[in-house]
Amino acid sequence: MALIVQKYGGTSVGSVERIKNVAKRVAKARAEGHDVVVVVSAMSGETNRLVALAQEIQEIPDPREFDVILSTGEQVTIGLLAMALKSIGVEAKSYTGWQVALKTDNAHTKARIEDIDDAKMRADLQDGKVVIVAGFQGVSGNGDITTLGRGGSDTSAVALAAALKADECQIYTDVDGVYTTDPRVVPEARRMETVTFDEMLELASLGSKVLQIRSVEFAGKYKVRLRVLSSLTEGGDGTLITFEEDPNMERAIVSGIAFDKNQARINVRGVPDKPGIAYQILGTVADANIEVDMIIQNVGTEGTTDFSFTVPRNDYKKALEVLQALQHTIGAQEVSGDDTVCKVSIVGLGMRSHVGVASKMFRALAADSINIQMISTSEIKVSVLIDEKYMELATRVLHKEFGLDAAK
Amino acid sequence: MALIVQKYGGTSVGSVERIKNVAKRVAKARAEGHDVVVVVSAMSGETNRLVALAQEIQEIPDPREFDVILSTGEQVTIGLLAMALKSIGVEAKSYTGWQVALKTDNAHTKARIEDIDDAKMRADLQDGKVVIVAGFQGVSGNGDITTLGRGGSDTSAVALAAALKADECQIYTDVDGVYTTDPRVVPEARRMETVTFDEMLELASLGSKVLQIRSVEFAGKYKVRLRVLSSLTEGGDGTLITFEEDPNMERAIVSGIAFDKNQARINVRGVPDKPGIAYQILGTVADANIEVDMIIQNVGTEGTTDFSFTVPRNDYKKALEVLQALQHTIGAQEVSGDDTVCKVSIVGLGMRSHVGVASKMFRALAADSINIQMISTSEIKVSVLIDEKYMELATRVLHKEFGLDAAK
Repeated sequence: MALIVQKYGGTSVGSVERIKNVAKRVAKARAEGHDVVVVVSAMSGETNRLVALAQEIQEIPDPREFDVILSTGEQVTIGLLAMALKSIGVEAKSYTGWQVALKTDNAHTKARIEDIDDAKMRADLQDGKVVIVAGFQGVSGNGDITTLGRGGSDTSAVALAAALKADECQIYTDVDGVYTTDPRVVPEARRMETVTFDEMLELASLGSKVLQIRSVEFAGKYKVRLRVLSSLTEGGDGTLITFEEDPNMERAIVSGIAFDKNQARINVRGVPDKPGIAYQILGTVADANIEVDMIIQNVGTEGTTDFSFTVPRNDYKKALEVLQALQHTIGAQEVSGDDTVCKVSIVGLGMRSHVGVASKMFRALAADSINIQMISTSEIKVSVLIDEKYMELATRVLHKEFGLDAAK
Repeated sequence: MALIVQKYGGTSVGSVERIKNVAKRVAKARAEGHDVVVVVSAMSGETNRLVALAQEIQEIPDPREFDVILSTGEQVTIGLLAMALKSIGVEAKSYTGWQVALKTDNAHTKARIEDIDDAKMRADLQDGKVVIVAGFQGVSGNGDITTLGRGGSDTSAVALAAALKADECQIYTDVDGVYTTDPRVVPEARRMETVTFDEMLELASLGSKVLQIRSVEFAGKYKVRLRVLSSLTEGGDGTLITFEEDPNMERAIVSGIAFDKNQARINVRGVPDKPGIAYQILGTVADANIEVDMIIQNVGTEGTTDFSFTVPRNDYKKALEVLQALQHTIGAQEVSGDDTVCKVSIVGLGMRSHVGVASKMFRALAADSINIQMISTSEIKVSVLIDEKYMELATRVLHKEFGLDAAK
């Protein structure tokens, strides 16, 4: 008998029929003797409907009022799921964010969780009830409704699991686990039975969008045992995300290949090489609210230096504009760029204790004539920027090279 | 400079365009120097959508969870209206039922208001903000979301006006006031400039469905100055509902004619006339959760008695069934009924000081060969049950007879 937090996303509760299926799944866990807390998102499409309604009134909706509106989506789902459970004889009780006292800061539309009062939930679990909590939402110190930002329901689930010291937090989604890479690109991709938090962080931020990155950080911080499972198929253990490396397990050097097309490269060439120049360039980009990912600086000729960095693709034009406006001031010879690039990364905890992983990656890409434009490395990751037309090829090549292809 | 509570129903906030119109109307009251608290319903159609969704899961939805779901309708409207006001430069802040601390009892789907904390609202009004409150909803002592039942937003508005000691509570609806009778039946019907609470209570309960009866009772109890106005047309003073008779005003004897087709007659004939028999019959009906309206008892022949009473038309079959099942037990000779009847009533405070009003009514109906099946009277009302096919004719005849037709 364990205490399990289950989270179901918008697709999993996207219709009355699917909500009834979720109820059956929850009932099964109860029948197995577990205490269950369920976190749900808004029915798929509902949040978009509310956003559209709000934007008909204000193009950029007032954040406090936007949260009031958006939070209704999850509130409808909790009521429906509680009813679905009761109608099959399982006692259940729903809570909105404020009812469960999921306290956040005041940052509307992207609030951070500060505290959770578990008293009501514990009492209900003691009474044999399933507790249903609206994901994505909380309440600020002054009693305003807040929301946690995109994917916030995952964060709600992990935070509740942490507060309740749950044995496991199960994230039900439309995939049955974390894969070594996207199976749509590499049919040989395999589901990982376990993945470490560090690997998951790199995989999530690089585009394996199974879990929201903040929820993974949260789980790591509070040592929550996290599992990703499919809500659409029966059976399967999904992927367990562990917060510490199992010393007895022999790990592959590389555990997954991530790729990301939301990339554009900016080059600032021939800038006088003097102190503060990097800040002047990157500070200008940051002031325009543009996030920078990979950054490289090369020594140029005759006392100048060259900068290259990547930005999200939909910020490409804006980044070019602000830097072209700055070109004269900083004395750059050229500001140019390319938005037909992509990033491919190999991720693996095993890299830490193995040398030559990066060079093996570069050799494999070179063998297929894939040119590398930029390189960045971290302790457990090597990323390369390449022409986007080679993205699928590069991913397949690396997946095979590092022995990730499923056995035939 | 006054403190005004304005309430807008579902039709008045039924689209983004209409919400913007409400914002303009509120802005106008602000510009005139008034403090404004706005109470809104769910956008028309939204409550029905939520009810249908809930009933897809449970035919009779769990009351606590039903309230969780239903209350989202108003929550969306408050956010949208706050945004609409801000976008035209009027500071505004929205509150759900629990945020404003509109405390109710635990009677889910038909809760009664117990207390309102006006501190937050007063502070906002002091700051020059428009306060927007979700109608129809509150929070129970143990922190559950409750709803107030059909038309509950009117009750919310009156309760807020009472708590804030507002100068006036304005109910905006799709009619421009209270009429002497339904203008669709009698084109000569006139808008009343004032109507007393007592008259309004009789008119509301008899089918002039401008205001929910509970809100009128509430207004009477707390002496709230209540006005019904049209949200769809500009100008017009609507109808003021006063809580005490103006001694200087010469009132018509009859101020309005109400009619109600939601009636069915039940007859229980030839019952042994012994103590407790009325209770046995009517108690059985009450136990089946059927409301009884008019009741008459006649002495029959040979120690028997006859009962007739009316029930809502959709309870007619059920009422017949439970009484036919009882027929043998109570020794009744016959249980029969008729569901093609209607009730027509004349209402007026002036009746109290005038004799002969009822007989004038009966004479007028007789002159047009309209047969009266049942009669019931109160201090300010006379109701008759007649064949439903005469409803319009009877209403027109009485409207003219009591001098209510508009001047040509």
